Amino acid sequence: MANNLHDVAYDLEKAIRNSEEYQTLTDAYKAVNEDEMAKKMFDNFRNLQMTLQQKQMSGETITEEEAQQAQQQVQVIQQHEAISKLMASEQRMSMLINDLNNIITKPLEDLYGKPEDLM
Amino acid sequence: MANNLHDVAYDLEKAIRNSEEYQTLTDAYKAVNEDEMAKKMFDNFRNLQMTLQQKQMSGETITEEEAQQAQQQVQVIQQHEAISKLMASEQRMSMLINDLNNIITKPLEDLYGKPEDLM
Ligand SMILES: [Ca+2]
Ligand SMILES: [Ca+2]
Repeated sequence: MANNLHDVAYDLEKAIRNSEEYQTLTDAYKAVNEDEMAKKMFDNFRNLQMTLQQKQMSGETITEEEAQQAQQQVQVIQQHEAISKLMASEQRMSMLINDLNNIITKPLEDLYGKPEDLM
Repeated sequence: MANNLHDVAYDLEKAIRNSEEYQTLTDAYKAVNEDEMAKKMFDNFRNLQMTLQQKQMSGETITEEEAQQAQQQVQVIQQHEAISKLMASEQRMSMLINDLNNIITKPLEDLYGKPEDLM
């Protein structure tokens, strides 16, 4: 049974890899990474996002200046076509993965209730 | 393609549900929940675990007394056969889910590096 389970997981991996969502994401990711300026802008944006997220998680206050800076970066970044394509493909991919997760965590949810209760 | 993807995810859900790991977990979970005292002991233990985890995550110090209390509860609880079976089945299930996750997150890992980088 364990073998069959892993086989099905590998089938799912392959289906994800062949999905239009993943192909589009891969292309968008490559386009940004091959464009030096786009990559730099995007990396800066991601770093700022992560810094702010970590601050929030550790209970630190995000200053108004930081919030404005993040907001401005989003606006600037979304005007860059390759970056805005990448962000859109990441969002689609993340929705797809979320969908798949909801399906495969259903057995545990049936047992324990909502997934967050499991942790 | 999206349809095929979801079909494969449903296949995986079914395979998880039919797995020996899930069947054993379901039985162990029922056994504890049908035994009023075991359920109470286990719920207390889980609550203490969660309280300590939340303390840790919010950067609070866990007192020596609390650490000892948790340690003692683990020892007491593991002597209860139904509870120790449940804990062992949860561990097996969690290893299985971890395995499956490693397989299906491989495409994203190929793109972004380690999964923790994605968040
Ligand atoms: Ca629950
Ligand atoms: Ca990375």
